[in-house]
Amino acid sequence: MKFELLKKTSFNSPRLSKLILDRGVINCPVFMPVGTNATVKALSPHELKEIGAEIILSNTYHLYLRPGMDVIEKAGGLHRFMSWEGPLLTDSGGFQVYSLARLREITEDGVWFRSHIDGSLHFLGPQEAMNIQSILGSDIAMVFDECTPYPSTYEYARNSMNLTLKWAKKCRDLKKENQALFGIVQGGIYKDLRIECLERLLEMDFDGYAVGGLSVNEPKEIMYEIIEYLGEAMPKDKPRYLMGVGEILDVLYAVEKGFDMFDCVMPTRNARNGTLFTSQGRLSIKRAEFKYDNSPLDPECECYTCRNFSRSYLRHLFLTKEILSMRLNTIHNLYFYLDFFRKMRKAIEEGKFGEFKRHWSNVFEADQFTEVTDGADKGD
Amino acid sequence: MKFELLKKTSFNSPRLSKLILDRGVINCPVFMPVGTNATVKALSPHELKEIGAEIILSNTYHLYLRPGMDVIEKAGGLHRFMSWEGPLLTDSGGFQVYSLARLREITEDGVWFRSHIDGSLHFLGPQEAMNIQSILGSDIAMVFDECTPYPSTYEYARNSMNLTLKWAKKCRDLKKENQALFGIVQGGIYKDLRIECLERLLEMDFDGYAVGGLSVNEPKEIMYEIIEYLGEAMPKDKPRYLMGVGEILDVLYAVEKGFDMFDCVMPTRNARNGTLFTSQGRLSIKRAEFKYDNSPLDPECECYTCRNFSRSYLRHLFLTKEILSMRLNTIHNLYFYLDFFRKMRKAIEEGKFGEFKRHWSNVFEADQFTEVTDGADKGD
Repeated sequence: MKFELLKKTSFNSPRLSKLILDRGVINCPVFMPVGTNATVKALSPHELKEIGAEIILSNTYHLYLRPGMDVIEKAGGLHRFMSWEGPLLTDSGGFQVYSLARLREITEDGVWFRSHIDGSLHFLGPQEAMNIQSILGSDIAMVFDECTPYPSTYEYARNSMNLTLKWAKKCRDLKKENQALFGIVQGGIYKDLRIECLERLLEMDFDGYAVGGLSVNEPKEIMYEIIEYLGEAMPKDKPRYLMGVGEILDVLYAVEKGFDMFDCVMPTRNARNGTLFTSQGRLSIKRAEFKYDNSPLDPECECYTCRNFSRSYLRHLFLTKEILSMRLNTIHNLYFYLDFFRKMRKAIEEGKFGEFKRHWSNVFEADQFTEVTDGADKGD
Repeated sequence: MKFELLKKTSFNSPRLSKLILDRGVINCPVFMPVGTNATVKALSPHELKEIGAEIILSNTYHLYLRPGMDVIEKAGGLHRFMSWEGPLLTDSGGFQVYSLARLREITEDGVWFRSHIDGSLHFLGPQEAMNIQSILGSDIAMVFDECTPYPSTYEYARNSMNLTLKWAKKCRDLKKENQALFGIVQGGIYKDLRIECLERLLEMDFDGYAVGGLSVNEPKEIMYEIIEYLGEAMPKDKPRYLMGVGEILDVLYAVEKGFDMFDCVMPTRNARNGTLFTSQGRLSIKRAEFKYDNSPLDPECECYTCRNFSRSYLRHLFLTKEILSMRLNTIHNLYFYLDFFRKMRKAIEEGKFGEFKRHWSNVFEADQFTEVTDGADKGD
C-alpha cells in the first residue's frame, strides 16, 4: 500500500490524498459503503462500481459467524466469494463484539461472546481476528481492539486502552506482507489517554491510523474535541480513518481537521427506511405531499433512480414494501454520499472547501430532520 | 395490434407467431413476467429488458387499490409510472377479486368486495375495469370476468359464464382504439359451456382469446382436457392466452395444443423462496450440499447470477435473508423461463418441438420436487 498526500496542508485544513492498493486507487477523503454480510444491502457489486464506490467495508464478526471461515476460505477469499474486484477493508470484529454480541467476558487474550444470531459461544482475540482477516483477504485489515464504552471511568478507559495496545502489538506481529494493517486509537473521552494510545501505536508503525470508540452515544462536543486534537496529533504521512462516523455535518468537521477515510451505515440503512439524502437535505419518501409528485427525487442528482423514476413512484414502492424500493433508495443514497465526497475533493483541490462546508452545513442544519442513527452496527 | 402466424400448423401442433404492438414485437409462445404492484418483484425495468422480457403483466385490482388511479393518471399511465417502455398486459381484476378480496357480492353490474389490504369496500365491474385499464394505458386489456370456482355445479358454472359473457359484451362496447382487448373463456369444467362461451365471445370479435379459471385447484387431467379441446376449437388467426398457467410441464402441454401466451408467478415467487430452475430441474439453494459449492447455480446458464456468483454465495445470501438473494434468484429464474421459451420457439421453428418436449419433460418429471404453487395471486 502506498499513500500519497496530494495537497500539503497545515493543521486545521482538509487533506487530499490517494491510497494506492493492488486492487485499485482510492481517492481520499473517501466514503466506504458498508457490506456487512458480504453484500452492501440491496446492491449488486456491479452497481456499487457503477455508482463510484472505490472501496467497501466488510465485517469480520458477521462473516466469521455466517457463512463461516471455512466457506470463504474454500471460495478463495471474500473478493471472489462476493464478486467484488475492488479494494476491501475489514474491521476486526472488536466493535461488533462490543455492540452486538451478548454475555461477553474480556480476557487478556481476547473476548468470549455469544452470537447475536443463535447464542452460540465464541472467542475472538487479536490472533483470531488476524487469521480471519487473512482468510478474508481484505486489502486493509484493522487491529483487534476493545471499544471503550461511553461513559467510562478514567481507570476503565486506561485499562481498556492498555488492552487495545497489547492486542495491537500482537496484530502487528502477525501482519501479512500483502495486507495493509491499521492501528486503532482508543482511550475513551480522555485526551491524555488518546494521545498516549496514538504515540504507542506510532511506535509499532502501522500503515494507517484509525480513531475508534466514537459515535457511541457520547455528546457531539466531546466527539468534535477528540477529532480536533487527534487531527492535530496524527501523523501527516499516513491515512487517517474515522471509524463509523458518517453524518454529513460530522464528515465536514472531520475532513477539515484532516481525516481521510469514513464509513457509516447511515446512507444504506436510511434508504431502507425511506429517508433520502438530497441537495435540499433529507426527506422522507412516504410523505403525503409526494403522492402526485412526478418530479425526480432530486433534480440535481444524476443517479439511476433520479434519472428514471418519480417521487410518486418511489413513494408507492415504499408503501407497498417492494424490494425495488430498497434498491432504488439505496442506489440514490449511496450515490449521494459518493458524489458528495467527489465534490468535496474537488472543492479541496480548488481551495474552496470553506465555501463547500458552509453550503452543505446550511443545507443539513436546515432540513429539520430529527432522526437519530445509533452507533450499533446491526448490519449495514 | 397485428397477429402474424409464422408457422401454419394443424391441430395438435405448436404455433410460432408474432404479436405486433406499437411498443414492441412479442415472439410467441411467450412468457409474461408478473409485475403486480407496478414492479416485477426485486427487478428493475431495465434488468427485465436485459434478460429478454418482451411484455410484462400488471394487475388492475392491486393498482386500483394502491397507489390508486388518480396517482397513475397524473403520472401519465403505467408505462411512465414504472419506467417500462415495452408492452404491458393488464388483467381486469376479476381473478384477484375472486382469489384475494373478502366478502364479495356479485351483482349483474359487477362485484362488491373488501380490500385485502385494509378491508375498505369497493366495486369493480366491466365499466370500472375498462376505465381503469384505459388509465393504466396497457397495450393489451382483458375483459372483466367472473372466475368460476372449482368445484362448481353445472348450474352455477352456466350462470357464471352468462355473467362473464354479459360483462365481456360491455367491455367490448367500451373498447378503446389504441388498446387491444382479449375475451376470456370461462365455463368451469364443463365442455359444452366452455365451447358455448368461446363461440359467443367469437361473435363479439376480440383481438385475442384467453382461457380463464384454470389452475384453481382442479385436477391436472381436467385442466389438460380443457386445454386440449379449446386448443382445437379456438380460432387459428388470433392469439391464445392461457392465464395463470406456468409450470414447465403444463406449458409444454399447452404449447403443443396451440397456446401462445403464458403468465405465472412461479419463477418470481419461487426465486424468493430459494427454489431455482436449472437445466437439471429445480433445486433448493438452502441445501447443505451447496455450502462449499463454488460452481455456478447452473453451468449451462448465461444469466448475470450464473456468470458472477457461486452456489455457496447464493446459499449464504439466502440464509442471511439478504435482499441481493431475492434479486439474484429472481434474475436467474426469469432468465431461465425466458430462455426456455426462446429455445422452445427455436425448436418449433426447426420442427424439433417433440424432441424439446421430451427432453424437458424428463428433466422436470425427474427432479422430485413436490412443492405446490397455488393459483391465488397474492402478489407476483
